[in-house]
Amino acid sequence: MVTPLDPTSLAFLMAENRAMPMHVGGLQLFDKPEGAGRSYSREMYASLREVEEIAPLFLRRPYRSPATGGQWVWTTDELFDIDYHVRHSGLPKPGRVRELLELCSRLHSTRLARERPLWEATLIEGLRDGRMALHTKMHHALVDGIAASRLVQSTLSTDPDQRDMPAPWSAANAPRKPSRELEGRSAPSLAEVPVEALRTALGISAEAAGMPSALVRTLVRGIRNDTSAVSLHAPHTIFNQKITGSRRFAAQDWPIERMKAIGTASGTTLNDVVLAMCSGALRAYLLENDALPDRPLVAMVPVGLNAKQVHQASSDGGNAVGSVMVQLGTHLDDPADRLMSVHTSMADGKQALSSMTPAQIVAMTAVGLAPAIITPALRMHHILRPPFNVIISNVPGPRETQYFNGARLSGLYPLSIPIHGMALNITCTSYDGVMGFGVTGCRRTVPRLQRLLTHLDDELAALEKATGA
Amino acid sequence: MVTPLDPTSLAFLMAENRAMPMHVGGLQLFDKPEGAGRSYSREMYASLREVEEIAPLFLRRPYRSPATGGQWVWTTDELFDIDYHVRHSGLPKPGRVRELLELCSRLHSTRLARERPLWEATLIEGLRDGRMALHTKMHHALVDGIAASRLVQSTLSTDPDQRDMPAPWSAANAPRKPSRELEGRSAPSLAEVPVEALRTALGISAEAAGMPSALVRTLVRGIRNDTSAVSLHAPHTIFNQKITGSRRFAAQDWPIERMKAIGTASGTTLNDVVLAMCSGALRAYLLENDALPDRPLVAMVPVGLNAKQVHQASSDGGNAVGSVMVQLGTHLDDPADRLMSVHTSMADGKQALSSMTPAQIVAMTAVGLAPAIITPALRMHHILRPPFNVIISNVPGPRETQYFNGARLSGLYPLSIPIHGMALNITCTSYDGVMGFGVTGCRRTVPRLQRLLTHLDDELAALEKATGA
Repeated sequence: MVTPLDPTSLAFLMAENRAMPMHVGGLQLFDKPEGAGRSYSREMYASLREVEEIAPLFLRRPYRSPATGGQWVWTTDELFDIDYHVRHSGLPKPGRVRELLELCSRLHSTRLARERPLWEATLIEGLRDGRMALHTKMHHALVDGIAASRLVQSTLSTDPDQRDMPAPWSAANAPRKPSRELEGRSAPSLAEVPVEALRTALGISAEAAGMPSALVRTLVRGIRNDTSAVSLHAPHTIFNQKITGSRRFAAQDWPIERMKAIGTASGTTLNDVVLAMCSGALRAYLLENDALPDRPLVAMVPVGLNAKQVHQASSDGGNAVGSVMVQLGTHLDDPADRLMSVHTSMADGKQALSSMTPAQIVAMTAVGLAPAIITPALRMHHILRPPFNVIISNVPGPRETQYFNGARLSGLYPLSIPIHGMALNITCTSYDGVMGFGVTGCRRTVPRLQRLLTHLDDELAALEKATGA
Repeated sequence: MVTPLDPTSLAFLMAENRAMPMHVGGLQLFDKPEGAGRSYSREMYASLREVEEIAPLFLRRPYRSPATGGQWVWTTDELFDIDYHVRHSGLPKPGRVRELLELCSRLHSTRLARERPLWEATLIEGLRDGRMALHTKMHHALVDGIAASRLVQSTLSTDPDQRDMPAPWSAANAPRKPSRELEGRSAPSLAEVPVEALRTALGISAEAAGMPSALVRTLVRGIRNDTSAVSLHAPHTIFNQKITGSRRFAAQDWPIERMKAIGTASGTTLNDVVLAMCSGALRAYLLENDALPDRPLVAMVPVGLNAKQVHQASSDGGNAVGSVMVQLGTHLDDPADRLMSVHTSMADGKQALSSMTPAQIVAMTAVGLAPAIITPALRMHHILRPPFNVIISNVPGPRETQYFNGARLSGLYPLSIPIHGMALNITCTSYDGVMGFGVTGCRRTVPRLQRLLTHLDDELAALEKATGA
């Protein structure tokens, strides 16, 4: 079956090059079920490969030829080879999380092959604590990061006794709907933004040459608008450089309870505390690299808005997403001051967002969702300074404990896409009482990125002390 | 330090694309020394990374900018990061050679990053037989396959008690000279062809647009010449298609004694027997894929010639290399008939070579060494049918048992470069009484390539039976 690529998918294909692979990823950690034998991971690997019918999304690949008029279309891979896509790896001893993250960094650094469906999954064994890991990679042209994460999550179960669950890429999975739990969460996901509006904004932005001027005007006016929601006053940092194709990925989680206690003690939100942790960690990292700018760093933070706020009736139930530019207060020495700076900036930003038109919000979202695509548009309009320094997303995940064929999901971390001018990306996912931080960066532009984990840990403790939590 | 790229290196850089990574590789297997503790491979990994001074070859990377006039130059990587280049991996259980080859296939499928020195090495643990493996990758722009293999070998020792041996990439290694043992072998390596002549032929062939017509005429006349040494009568096969970027690598070795016994019984050479094994294996493989052409496959086989044969005085001592087009007799049902067909074709080819001028031989060598580079030149001259179907090289390796810091080298296999129109490459290396076959192919164009190993094994037995060895 041949279907044309929608403009968004096309934009992500076109934006990709060796230095900027355009895939998102996920790292899941599983506890083996009780009574699992020595060959458990081998059996799990076999079950992931032995799929009767592959779901169409996992069979399609981009293709163009004179017969398609030179246009990119989705076609089904007639030579589909499951062994190519579903892989099995081991870790060298001692099999610490360090060795796991090193492997994930390498896996995230290689591009997906375009002559095949744009995904890979690697089952990883050899962790000394006995857990198994599943690293997944999907091209952004196929699915966005949050949809990818939900896709995988939708194949999990809260029932530890459920068995015969199909692999995520199996057609045997029910048509994907948001689970009740996900529907009930407070912050709606980016994936729920009205799709047509988004596609239009994204797709057209990408095709910079032929971009209708009205849309560009909206977009540029939106981000030139001098509110804290759309600040262009970000300082230049080492993160805002040209990047290379090699990645470093680091991940760790912390109890949400500790963060909520800080929020309660200081009158701030969970998201404020997450941002303050990042702020303190970035400050410490830049200080030890002798690269802290005098002015505070600005983070682009996607936030959820309800229908009333955006005066927008939506057939999807009224959820929408905007982006807030948050001043991180990295110039401030005191953790509590940084937390307050983040809190104020975030409140200002949400306020500013609520006064924007739906079109402006969609434009902002486009900037946030797809900076790689938007960059040429900005350059075209002589906006050369980075509008923000770093992207920090906080994506709610499942609250209840999840299982896959009896194996308990004990960790869940997203891998995201660094781009030229935006070498670092922090994405957090809550799950089962903990907040998992996934830090993805260019290995060369962001040296010793894994140090950020230590700094995040230190900052959480410092915030507890400073707020008396 | 900035030095311009020579034309050969430049040609390999320019010929590279996603479907045709231009690196060669090597797989070495090591027995741990007696008394090695549980952390032996970790210690070995540490010693491979803890190198005081890196040799200049392993520090240089290609670079161009307006400051270099847009020309590619070699520059030193000022941000050299040994952890990026020297990696440590584990195998999943059960840790058979199968799992090792799967990993090597994946490692060989990814391109080397150009913003860094063009090499990678991976120490692999987790083989159930307790051995360790070292997979190395080097760009053809940096070094050719045989030189790469010799480079690594030159850092080994015949003394099992020698310790404190530096890593192959250490500047502490003595300036690289052919070892006495390598000098004494019968077939000189491709690397010993007069370098300037070769560079000229290769470099200029690659820059097809500006190729001096005199050289092109020599080249084209050389391969149009209708002798069996320069046959253009190769049938079309599944191997002669456009390839993809994913690789499959398979490797195995067999005792040279068994092959020599066949040679003695049939009056043929060791190289003839190697080619006959390949012939039978290719026939069986093509038969089971229902793709055996009626006419026999033609293999391009590099052979060594002495100075007298080529009437050529060389300051290097007179060694030179030519390429013979060998009809493999794949249309013949009987193993003994195939062996005789190979033997006759090889003898004819060498005879033809000896009547060629040095310039023609260099041109032939260029075709053999760098088909990727030569292909545009052929197409330019409307030679569209493949001049041969497959490249089979037989590179002599060390005869004596080698050690690295007490670890015995127990296996040595080369990984080579498939290209568009030439999806399969077989390279053999003799070592310590066995002949190691390294089979590298495009994973998609050559499905289930690993079946060739079974067929090679079957064919060796069939040749023994047919010749009464």
